[in-house]
Amino acid sequence: MENISKIWLGPLPADSPYVKPFRMYYVQNGVEKNWDLLKVHDSVAIVLYNTTRQKLVLVRQFRPAVYHGHVTSTENGTFDVDLQSYPPAIGVTLELCAGIVDKAKSWTEIAREEVLEECGYDVPVSRIEEVMVYRSGVGSSGAKQAMYYCEVTDADKVNSGGGVDDEIIEVVELSLDEVRAMVRQGAVNNSPPSCLMGLMWFLANKAPAST
Amino acid sequence: MENISKIWLGPLPADSPYVKPFRMYYVQNGVEKNWDLLKVHDSVAIVLYNTTRQKLVLVRQFRPAVYHGHVTSTENGTFDVDLQSYPPAIGVTLELCAGIVDKAKSWTEIAREEVLEECGYDVPVSRIEEVMVYRSGVGSSGAKQAMYYCEVTDADKVNSGGGVDDEIIEVVELSLDEVRAMVRQGAVNNSPPSCLMGLMWFLANKAPAST
Repeated sequence: MENISKIWLGPLPADSPYVKPFRMYYVQNGVEKNWDLLKVHDSVAIVLYNTTRQKLVLVRQFRPAVYHGHVTSTENGTFDVDLQSYPPAIGVTLELCAGIVDKAKSWTEIAREEVLEECGYDVPVSRIEEVMVYRSGVGSSGAKQAMYYCEVTDADKVNSGGGVDDEIIEVVELSLDEVRAMVRQGAVNNSPPSCLMGLMWFLANKAPAST
Repeated sequence: MENISKIWLGPLPADSPYVKPFRMYYVQNGVEKNWDLLKVHDSVAIVLYNTTRQKLVLVRQFRPAVYHGHVTSTENGTFDVDLQSYPPAIGVTLELCAGIVDKAKSWTEIAREEVLEECGYDVPVSRIEEVMVYRSGVGSSGAKQAMYYCEVTDADKVNSGGGVDDEIIEVVELSLDEVRAMVRQGAVNNSPPSCLMGLMWFLANKAPAST
């Protein structure tokens, strides 16, 4: 995963399909204001619980945006990154199985595909339950994310997961005690708030009473 | 708050102090990849509980990025927004008291200032407790956010809050039952996952046992 040999930064091309920046102008109570923001893809995230093993199934991966956030706490502009000073491991996250909505399919179907591609469980959409829908990034992007819950068993496992194409994703199983420790600590593993929120929701609503 | 008379979109100026987009290139397992991302400010958010009134104190405001997210589910590019089709109210969020880290002050001091400016409570930094630190937006920006907890009383209230300069922020008090309902519903009020996570954390760790 962290076998990364070179990292460098360049300007955003004007035709990026993933990040489209804008300045929004508006007049509020007669005063003209503006706000810089960007359009990113909407997304799905899935709280995945293996009832056979009583484990939450999460994914671990190198996230360029998180790595960049660490690096640019002290550096600015476009440059070659010194991998000695900034080891790639600082950009690895532990998060929910997730994916962007960039296909003409239902959101639940996209969630089903991510569960299969990233984690290797083949389940019908009827077993994927919507938990909540929210806007993430109120400050810079108001992209929509839908969170789902899905229970799987060992019998649903059809491959080892890990993503498609060039994706390098590691499947990680956490016991309920490990999840409880994780939401208490919060800061570890670069986990985003949506992941921690999903785990807290699971503990409050779905976790077996005693384990 | 929703007294907004005109909204339009333009390109992001190259010198935006708030949003700096990049393309990051990297070589993972010998394969060159890239990822589009942006640098945004780190931030603080505060779970604020008024023990006199037994109310959580949140803020309500028009968020351009959230409004833009709603509009661009169906529209693209730069244009004048039709306020009949997209009433400004769809961009109003209910969220934790929060602010960006753009001053040479300690994060706790910035949190203290936001509590005063947005919500009108004057408390010393010694009463602001760190809850957790995390990266938000793992997909497009890995900005750091620190979440704090602060208990206040009516005696700490020195003004009505509402923000500084041109900010238009409404202070909203929620009972514990209202907060419990909010985290169950999730999707309402455009609340971001960090807010819902903070409220879940409060309910699990700080809320009085019975109310």
